Amino acid sequence: MSKYGYFDSENKEYVITRPDTPLPWINYLGAEQYCALFSNTAGGYSFYRDPKERRITRYRYNNVPQDRGGRYVYIRDNKTEDFWSTSWQPVMKKDKYECRHGIGYSIITTEYAGVQTKTTYFVPLGENLEIWMLEIKSRKAVDLSVFPFVEFCLWDALNDMTDYQYNLNIGQTEYKDHIIYHLSRYRVSQDVVGFLACANAIPKGFDTQRRDFLGTYGDFHNPRAVEEGKMNNSIACGWAPVGALMLPCHLKANETKTFIFVLGFSEDINEPAKKVKKFSRKDVVLKELARLKEYWAESLDKFSVRTPDNELNLMANTWNQYQCRTTFNWSRSASYYESGIGRGMGFRDSNQDTLGFVHMIPEKVKERIKDLAATQLPDGSAYHQYSPLTKKANPSDHKYGDDHLWLIYSVASYLKETGDLAFLKEKVTFAGEDKGTMYEHLARAIKFSLKHIGSHGLPKILFADWNDCLNLDQGKGKAESVMVAQMLVGAAYEMAKMAELLNKKKDAKFYQQVADKMKAQINKASWDGEWYVRAYTDECEPVGAKVCPEGKIYLESQAWAVMSGTADRERGLKCMDSVHRHLATEHGIQVMTPPYSKFYYQLGSIGVYPPGLKENGAIFCHPNPWAMVAECLLGRGDRAYEYYRAILPAARGEIADLHKTEPYVYCQMIAGKFHKDFGEGKNSWLTGSACWNFVAMSQYILGIRPDYQGLKIDPCIPKAWKGFSVKRTFRGADYLITVRNPYGVSKGVQNIVLDGKKVHGNILPAGKPGKEHRVDVMMG
Amino acid sequence: MSKYGYFDSENKEYVITRPDTPLPWINYLGAEQYCALFSNTAGGYSFYRDPKERRITRYRYNNVPQDRGGRYVYIRDNKTEDFWSTSWQPVMKKDKYECRHGIGYSIITTEYAGVQTKTTYFVPLGENLEIWMLEIKSRKAVDLSVFPFVEFCLWDALNDMTDYQYNLNIGQTEYKDHIIYHLSRYRVSQDVVGFLACANAIPKGFDTQRRDFLGTYGDFHNPRAVEEGKMNNSIACGWAPVGALMLPCHLKANETKTFIFVLGFSEDINEPAKKVKKFSRKDVVLKELARLKEYWAESLDKFSVRTPDNELNLMANTWNQYQCRTTFNWSRSASYYESGIGRGMGFRDSNQDTLGFVHMIPEKVKERIKDLAATQLPDGSAYHQYSPLTKKANPSDHKYGDDHLWLIYSVASYLKETGDLAFLKEKVTFAGEDKGTMYEHLARAIKFSLKHIGSHGLPKILFADWNDCLNLDQGKGKAESVMVAQMLVGAAYEMAKMAELLNKKKDAKFYQQVADKMKAQINKASWDGEWYVRAYTDECEPVGAKVCPEGKIYLESQAWAVMSGTADRERGLKCMDSVHRHLATEHGIQVMTPPYSKFYYQLGSIGVYPPGLKENGAIFCHPNPWAMVAECLLGRGDRAYEYYRAILPAARGEIADLHKTEPYVYCQMIAGKFHKDFGEGKNSWLTGSACWNFVAMSQYILGIRPDYQGLKIDPCIPKAWKGFSVKRTFRGADYLITVRNPYGVSKGVQNIVLDGKKVHGNILPAGKPGKEHRVDVMMG
Repeated sequence: MSKYGYFDSENKEYVITRPDTPLPWINYLGAEQYCALFSNTAGGYSFYRDPKERRITRYRYNNVPQDRGGRYVYIRDNKTEDFWSTSWQPVMKKDKYECRHGIGYSIITTEYAGVQTKTTYFVPLGENLEIWMLEIKSRKAVDLSVFPFVEFCLWDALNDMTDYQYNLNIGQTEYKDHIIYHLSRYRVSQDVVGFLACANAIPKGFDTQRRDFLGTYGDFHNPRAVEEGKMNNSIACGWAPVGALMLPCHLKANETKTFIFVLGFSEDINEPAKKVKKFSRKDVVLKELARLKEYWAESLDKFSVRTPDNELNLMANTWNQYQCRTTFNWSRSASYYESGIGRGMGFRDSNQDTLGFVHMIPEKVKERIKDLAATQLPDGSAYHQYSPLTKKANPSDHKYGDDHLWLIYSVASYLKETGDLAFLKEKVTFAGEDKGTMYEHLARAIKFSLKHIGSHGLPKILFADWNDCLNLDQGKGKAESVMVAQMLVGAAYEMAKMAELLNKKKDAKFYQQVADKMKAQINKASWDGEWYVRAYTDECEPVGAKVCPEGKIYLESQAWAVMSGTADRERGLKCMDSVHRHLATEHGIQVMTPPYSKFYYQLGSIGVYPPGLKENGAIFCHPNPWAMVAECLLGRGDRAYEYYRAILPAARGEIADLHKTEPYVYCQMIAGKFHKDFGEGKNSWLTGSACWNFVAMSQYILGIRPDYQGLKIDPCIPKAWKGFSVKRTFRGADYLITVRNPYGVSKGVQNIVLDGKKVHGNILPAGKPGKEHRVDVMMG
Repeated sequence: MSKYGYFDSENKEYVITRPDTPLPWINYLGAEQYCALFSNTAGGYSFYRDPKERRITRYRYNNVPQDRGGRYVYIRDNKTEDFWSTSWQPVMKKDKYECRHGIGYSIITTEYAGVQTKTTYFVPLGENLEIWMLEIKSRKAVDLSVFPFVEFCLWDALNDMTDYQYNLNIGQTEYKDHIIYHLSRYRVSQDVVGFLACANAIPKGFDTQRRDFLGTYGDFHNPRAVEEGKMNNSIACGWAPVGALMLPCHLKANETKTFIFVLGFSEDINEPAKKVKKFSRKDVVLKELARLKEYWAESLDKFSVRTPDNELNLMANTWNQYQCRTTFNWSRSASYYESGIGRGMGFRDSNQDTLGFVHMIPEKVKERIKDLAATQLPDGSAYHQYSPLTKKANPSDHKYGDDHLWLIYSVASYLKETGDLAFLKEKVTFAGEDKGTMYEHLARAIKFSLKHIGSHGLPKILFADWNDCLNLDQGKGKAESVMVAQMLVGAAYEMAKMAELLNKKKDAKFYQQVADKMKAQINKASWDGEWYVRAYTDECEPVGAKVCPEGKIYLESQAWAVMSGTADRERGLKCMDSVHRHLATEHGIQVMTPPYSKFYYQLGSIGVYPPGLKENGAIFCHPNPWAMVAECLLGRGDRAYEYYRAILPAARGEIADLHKTEPYVYCQMIAGKFHKDFGEGKNSWLTGSACWNFVAMSQYILGIRPDYQGLKIDPCIPKAWKGFSVKRTFRGADYLITVRNPYGVSKGVQNIVLDGKKVHGNILPAGKPGKEHRVDVMMG
């Protein structure tokens, strides 16, 4: 519960009860090629596939007031001449307000001057358009005008915000058969058409030139055309194309009318008219909305839980999975923090993201992994990013110490989920030339790391590893990463298992040795007494060690020591206790401490940030679940759960004025305790936090963990829990798992009964696709 | 006279009488390294040297409402709780308003609720800061609070508007000794400090975090801190740093108080306090303002006229020169249309720009030409652009057919102005390696063109020529440019003269032959009957010829035929008559006609624009003066003057609602007659229109034209003019020239009397520096 809203678990909606949330609280509409970033006051923008090249509507990032620019509907009372908007912004008048963010749709209801409006926004499946269905009702008879409004982007989002001597001259629109066509660039490319129309009523007027609709110094909150109730029927030729319509709306007392607005994109100029016609009936719109809800319900239904923690349930069953799925769609491209013009698909990001949705869409994960592998270089390293539109790598990128190793983790996760060992034999091209089986791709990843070993016997960090800001290589090429070394240990153990399964005994032995040797090397070179060193600079000085004046301890190399099997139990407990002592706070675990009070050239860009922000000592929500996994592996369920709760968005709604970001999705970062706004969140939605928290919660805390042989049951829960249940689809079969914990333990499975039969060990064999299995688990 | 303002010629000011100009009407403050773009409602931004890397304040281009973001001062009446701003924007309340744009300073006076404010904005010479001097007076006793406000940019203007996951975490400020320091990035670079202070009063409170000052959804027009009259003393650490102060201000009836605000930049964190102290007294501020005015008066005093055309006088004496000088400072980098993040110094632009200010600052032109020559390649061609900060060329640019030839024109202009023939012997490095005398640089430019000749015997156009949008080379490398051929003729004639002066007889003969042969070739290959063809496509098809379905005639190849000496008198008259018939309109001469109704791949990007905009048939103000020059060379003074008047900004004030851009500076483009807003201007201030209109007016219409031997007197004026006078500094001597035209001719000088003695011919020999000469010219 928050002063700004609450979860409606029945409808799988988050209900926002006042419009002035600390930051815009966003939803993503569109599950396929069309995406609409949508805030709780209808702010945001839409794009088709690529937010840089096919930006449909214009949005001003970092705007004043915040989140101004969206899909607005103005209402004017023609008698009183008062006017307002149906989503609070931009006129900012309301008597009542509510926004329901659902899975793939949002509904905003408001009331002002006795007029109730309910606007349902969604992107129908298979369509490149969005519906705004406005239901409008008045307590008394009124004569209204209704104005849907959108500002068009000139397609290329970067050019749109930089090159005015050019782009103030390319705008073009047309108004034909009551449809506004946005045709800028169509002269040249003939493949980009935007459109706005009312599908079920005929406009009385329109405007497509911004100046005419708003007035010369008019603002979105007081458009001249709305103030005056008079459109200019303007056609844009240059300047700023917009779409605005005026629809008459006479309502009797308590009468309801419905307007269906369609905003869309097409590559064919003849298509919009057909699409507008298709959605001209309310029953069709409602059917499409129902179909969308079914689609999502089916998607999310692959995993659901019931635990004593209602906020965990809300996140696990709906929002965490939905967020994971959103990172599948849009990686890090377009959010309230990612302006959609820069980053493509990250190799490291995208491999990790798959962990969060492989149970939902394994076949798509397979395709994604192949795309990623195709940007791996023949030497085993990987390009850091590639374009989602062309799938071509960006070759000017730096080389990172870790990127290529993540491929092993994503492939392992895919294999464990699906059992599809044949995938390892599939051939995929390396970047540029050369083909190899997926197994060969993974082998070369290991090989690359082994070829770049530094003076402590550890892999070199190159430009950076997971921590982008540790740019330790100052030209000598000597800097090393303990975290990469640990990732290598874990990856080599994983490779040994895969080799075993493929019956490659020699390989299996080799990888086992690689892991064992690297593990020994780390423990020899990088144990600092109470925790593991994080890295070594180009001058071979340790980073994240007691001798360091600042940045004495880092989270990553402790959690990964345990996750990878590098640490024995004693060191594992010790280093994770150090994490608890030095890094853990009530708002989550800081990535390191103490933060750097100044900029150290030898450490790279980490010191760019003030203490407590980002890599410089913030609570990064991405590695926090690594600590949860580590604690679960160590059997300390209460501590793992404490970490889980600290950053759980749903549990932070009460401190929304501090946390600021959405209480239904993870943010990348929470300010650390060295920052004056300790606990303040930033950069929500598109973050690796989504997948890793899902993995930590589902596979380690609840312990429902796919493995090569089957579905492992290995919970590590708070002792106080009496039990929980999980419904999990695994390799096509459904498992209804009930876990009881009568003895109040954290870990340990006493026995498992599968469909009435006792199971040996704690791995459920894969059942028959389509079958449903009952599993009873007794902890103790 | 315009409904928006008028010229105050005595004070060399343009006075804007209402704030809601069709577009923001801009002034440039700062003559050296600090630049403040300043609109009539105090909008705009400031930067130090480079608007991309050292952007001091934040500005949102293409904002709604337009031009929101600037240097604002809010006033709050603490009794009534009403508040407003001293520059209309952003609160948009006023009873009275006036803005005076002067040369290097602006003054905004407003009155609201009986409180009068006058704010003088300027950048003192030698300083990297701007002063806002606020004089405030009330009719009755009032208790006010005064809030100066600015939003800081995070230095890198492109990053500032794109990379929020990063830049929402780097903001830092400090408040110390009543000064707000903006320290983002200072952690790293220690060389960028912004600051805001009140130099002569002590603030009662401050804010440096935007959210705290504005409120969560607050707007610039209603900051919460101003509404409530209460500051939060916030320090930014991340998010959006701003500078805002609150100063108490009790006024008795008719009392005046003065506040001096200082906004500035420094590379030394200890400097701001000293600077603030320096400007803490009003008399110091006024002295600095006076010094600035003197500086400009001296600068502009090198050339002044008195003609029967008052609007010509206003432009010639003040605004046209001021605009030229501004293009020297900022090339095409930062204007209301150039967002300051893209274009560096253009080779073509900058060479031409020098023509407009070589009489003011010849020594700086020499340096500029050397910078330009240093980006010429050893093969004679040139890089298209270079960075103003590093002076390094941008090597990824395309190669253009014309760039290198402009160097010959700028050098010739410099030599004619100064007589500094030794410059030709100075050695300047070519890009990359290799040194050569300036003469060698020019020789290689000619050589490059001669090496790239196509099938019509004309130079190839390569990526484009002056008309950036004629991208005719589709990969075959065959496309040719008639305009470049004509430029080559003119340049070779110029080279022949220079060779002569250096006593290089063989060279002189060679260049004469080059010119003669190319001239003959153009006349043989490219005369289309009534005008010259413009170019040839990669398929050798003509562009700008009668056979073309669209784009039948272009302006450039007619004007340049005459300017370069390519056309004999008969063809010159004929082609310029064709210009008059087909291209001239009441709003100026269109660059071509009819515009392309669709996009033709073989013609390149010209068809990107709708008909009547930009290169696709707009009135380009840059080549218009070429037609004026051509008409003057043909002796048709009335027509040249008609062309001059058509685009003269000062003459377009009456149609300001159509023309839209400032009536005191040239804009790049006016919509052509195929556009629905025929006559609408766009892209003012930083345009080659400034220099060329100055050249056409001063050297050809008034005919005061520097030549190698001295100052040529060769007017070509409207027959109705009875005469005019000019004061001109030339090679250090002052010439007071009076021209009489008792016989009502356009052209022809009957006799010239210099200091009482008759001169043979029409060239005044260079006088002694410091001397003043009286020149009486009789036309007839």
